[in-house]
Amino acid sequence: MAHIDFGVDESLFPGISGPMRFRPETAGPLNQLAEALLRAPHSLPQGERELIAAYVSGLNECKFCCDSHSAFAAAQLDDGMALVKEVRKDPYSAPISDKLRALLKIAAAVQESGRKVTTLLVDEARAEGATDVEIHDTVLIAAAFAMFNRYVDGLGTLAPEDPAVYKESAQRIVEHGYVATLTDSPTP
Amino acid sequence: MAHIDFGVDESLFPGISGPMRFRPETAGPLNQLAEALLRAPHSLPQGERELIAAYVSGLNECKFCCDSHSAFAAAQLDDGMALVKEVRKDPYSAPISDKLRALLKIAAAVQESGRKVTTLLVDEARAEGATDVEIHDTVLIAAAFAMFNRYVDGLGTLAPEDPAVYKESAQRIVEHGYVATLTDSPTP
Repeated sequence: MAHIDFGVDESLFPGISGPMRFRPETAGPLNQLAEALLRAPHSLPQGERELIAAYVSGLNECKFCCDSHSAFAAAQLDDGMALVKEVRKDPYSAPISDKLRALLKIAAAVQESGRKVTTLLVDEARAEGATDVEIHDTVLIAAAFAMFNRYVDGLGTLAPEDPAVYKESAQRIVEHGYVATLTDSPTP
Repeated sequence: MAHIDFGVDESLFPGISGPMRFRPETAGPLNQLAEALLRAPHSLPQGERELIAAYVSGLNECKFCCDSHSAFAAAQLDDGMALVKEVRKDPYSAPISDKLRALLKIAAAVQESGRKVTTLLVDEARAEGATDVEIHDTVLIAAAFAMFNRYVDGLGTLAPEDPAVYKESAQRIVEHGYVATLTDSPTP
């Protein structure tokens, strides 16, 4: 049971969807931030940005966010969940571009602390072709999931075990995005 | 020097103000989130919410955010910077309400990991009179500063040494809020 009463049935509104319905005043900017970082037009494909989110959420051991964004990444990557699992297990050997690998290294540093991001890590990403916007957004995606993960787990929300829940949610996010889900009912 | 070029003079736009000008698409929701959490009408005074932000930023060792939100808290608390310093040094002995002390304990747990927030910590806060909204917002303020701190330090931004910079910034935030500062020029 969550630490506070969100006023909705937790089994129908698991994870972040309970607190978002409890507090629409903060849900608005939170969803707009997710939309800008993970869905808006970008030189990094949506699947790769979701992969960064899933990877960081895995490092933070946040089951709800990790399973959600793994499903969202899988739905938007050619190699689907197999690739997501490989990246989460070992980004160094996974079959991804060297640019994405360098960005994941930056994300892993941010997960620990902003002060762990070194000039060397940034130079490596740049040498693999990463732009300033890609570096900026990687830092902010990793930082944002330091927030989302703590928000979801800090309120003791429910993380469903059934993978089908996350797959259904992925379909909704891919079709409608993050901002629209706020008014949907019910959605994980 | 910051890790990427924000397109502005860093000495005029230190800390978060550089990345916010570089990427207005994400600055919008970030400022709206800060406004909703730290400035909107609330049962917790603005000074106390800024104190939670300053305390968490101190734990994350983010100089720019800690000095900024310490100044913002000081400007809105009767006992000013003396109280802010006492709380940051030892919230257990500082002359604050037992409710705020219990909320700061929750914030310190979130700073480490969302999974560190226990039922006991939440029950203690509730026993001191904390409402569900106050508990929710404390978790989200602490989570949001896990993000803001990593964003500011992960991009290697400049944190001015001169306390006057933060004091001026406090005046602007107290008068105009977070959303308005986005279009101000220049502002720390």
